[in-house]
Amino acid sequence: MTTLDDLPIRDDLRGRTPYGAPQLDVPVRLNTNENSYPVPEPVVEAIGKALAAELRDLNRYPDRDAVALRADLAGYLGHGLTVDHVWAANGSNEIQQQLLQAFGGPGRSALGFVPAYSMHPLLALGTGTRWIPAARGVDFGLTADEAVAQVREHRPDVVFLCSPNNPTGTALDPAVVAAVLDAAPGMVVVDEAYAEFARPGTVSALAVLPGHPRLVVTRTMSKAFGFAGGRLGYLAADPAVVAAVQLVRLPYHLSALTQAAARAALAHRDALLGTVTAIMEQRDRIVAELRARGHRVADSDANFVLFAVGASDAAPSPGAVDQAAAWRTLLEAGVLVRDVGLPGWLRVTAGTPTETDAFLTAMERVS
Amino acid sequence: MTTLDDLPIRDDLRGRTPYGAPQLDVPVRLNTNENSYPVPEPVVEAIGKALAAELRDLNRYPDRDAVALRADLAGYLGHGLTVDHVWAANGSNEIQQQLLQAFGGPGRSALGFVPAYSMHPLLALGTGTRWIPAARGVDFGLTADEAVAQVREHRPDVVFLCSPNNPTGTALDPAVVAAVLDAAPGMVVVDEAYAEFARPGTVSALAVLPGHPRLVVTRTMSKAFGFAGGRLGYLAADPAVVAAVQLVRLPYHLSALTQAAARAALAHRDALLGTVTAIMEQRDRIVAELRARGHRVADSDANFVLFAVGASDAAPSPGAVDQAAAWRTLLEAGVLVRDVGLPGWLRVTAGTPTETDAFLTAMERVS
Repeated sequence: MTTLDDLPIRDDLRGRTPYGAPQLDVPVRLNTNENSYPVPEPVVEAIGKALAAELRDLNRYPDRDAVALRADLAGYLGHGLTVDHVWAANGSNEIQQQLLQAFGGPGRSALGFVPAYSMHPLLALGTGTRWIPAARGVDFGLTADEAVAQVREHRPDVVFLCSPNNPTGTALDPAVVAAVLDAAPGMVVVDEAYAEFARPGTVSALAVLPGHPRLVVTRTMSKAFGFAGGRLGYLAADPAVVAAVQLVRLPYHLSALTQAAARAALAHRDALLGTVTAIMEQRDRIVAELRARGHRVADSDANFVLFAVGASDAAPSPGAVDQAAAWRTLLEAGVLVRDVGLPGWLRVTAGTPTETDAFLTAMERVS
Repeated sequence: MTTLDDLPIRDDLRGRTPYGAPQLDVPVRLNTNENSYPVPEPVVEAIGKALAAELRDLNRYPDRDAVALRADLAGYLGHGLTVDHVWAANGSNEIQQQLLQAFGGPGRSALGFVPAYSMHPLLALGTGTRWIPAARGVDFGLTADEAVAQVREHRPDVVFLCSPNNPTGTALDPAVVAAVLDAAPGMVVVDEAYAEFARPGTVSALAVLPGHPRLVVTRTMSKAFGFAGGRLGYLAADPAVVAAVQLVRLPYHLSALTQAAARAALAHRDALLGTVTAIMEQRDRIVAELRARGHRVADSDANFVLFAVGASDAAPSPGAVDQAAAWRTLLEAGVLVRDVGLPGWLRVTAGTPTETDAFLTAMERVS
């Protein structure tokens, strides 16, 4: 039998395994930051109707530029943005891959402050972009000084910032974005996949777009919109950035079905985003309850919580607390959370009140 | 205003324009090799039903490995193929991009025999793969000797073969595929986007898969299935190749809607592929009629025809016959065909009998 090693794959891929959390059939799945609420019935009907209108003409290629969808996304974002400022693709992964193809790639570099979204280094690998893992500060924080010093040292072609950050959950101080924009020689991508869940007072980098053509804000409909299965990510930036990604996008990359379904979902944004407040309440409840039990917990502006499995006075040294054992204990209790590879820490998605109950009960077996 | 040139885009992208045929609103569109027949009503209903079943759960990520769809595709292809031999993505463009990410990329090369599918060099550019344009023979033909000599000279990491070739329309002699497989040091990708339209007796490279782990056959549902708007491309190869592309694929790249719609379309393949014979008849009619009028015409195994706009005794020297002027003349007559950049030649899609009538009538203005 032929194995992967028998094939002439790239040397930098040898020995690797595909990215992805285990897709296990468990009663309570809190491992991929999905929105736990199913699509409401009126929205199901509206999307179904929008899709039905496309089916007869599926023999034709879709609008290559997805103009109507991009206009709708701009309308949703506000901030005076128009269709020319927005680009859409099959998930924000594809958006960020396109950005690396246009602004990174062979001979160029991308820098991120780890731990952050674990796809960023993989997207760099897949596009031949050299990856520079920069450090975060105390308790996974990031100050403007810490960020700027590392950007000045490495002078990367692309900087990834995550706000709110994944897996830690905390939004960035706008001063960090401003300082990095000032210091970076190339593009600055702010990944705001979880922006809609941010605590009151959090400022989106969208507000900084005017006058900053090297700034890109990426978003997704997978989280707050509960549209993970529909695969729709997008970016907002200067129109020149949109023109740049159009040089590398695959023609007809967004199906007619994706465009129609996403537009229908956007038209019913009030119903879909109605879950956000409920999820934020569960998020805050998980944070408060775990802290009350003595766990260290990162501040969260997202629909998930990063927590130390041991007590807060335990030193977070590698191996001191076995998060892998805790992960298995929770799984045995029917609750699937995410081991993001941080010694002593686990990440849990905030879902329904019932899911929070199950998680908090299962956590009694851990500590 | 910021322009593309003000941004730090890659130097190899500077001055380029996005790929794509003009999307013009013309009565008779025969420029992108779409299937001219709309989706039949019973299939519309079946796809609609399949999509409706997915909508409530769009808050969840789709099956990352698209197992059920891949099994269905394997069943359609036959040749003893199983789910492990098949991989699917958003169009065969994404399939071929993934292949270049796994087997090409920085420091590696890909070779194609031009003119061929014009996305191949662009996919190479987008993945940092060095592109080697190899030559075809007389009248765009390609013999085993011609192919092998160039493969031996350049030793590319990836060879693209197109069968039937686009834009010429002619299928490859299986001896060419066998000889290239034998000579090539790396992967051999046979792009069979138009395979279902091939003339009787044409042999698919699928038959050669057993025992050839460096061979990849790519297909699409955009053409024969009339599913261009659904965006579904796929490959068949040794399971190790499928494992290789899974190292570079974006997680959850195929939406739940795409997977469901494609499965429903495959379940109704008889109804969808029912148009193939009718299209082949129009293709053969175009070939015969243009030849009868004195045009040089490439043999076609596809749903399109490449023809010289001048008479067959005209020398095919650049500038001798202005295909751009002929393209405009046809457009003014309401018929949109494709100028593929070959001096003196144009490509027309075979569609309905009415479309053929319109094209042949408009062609009277050209010659």
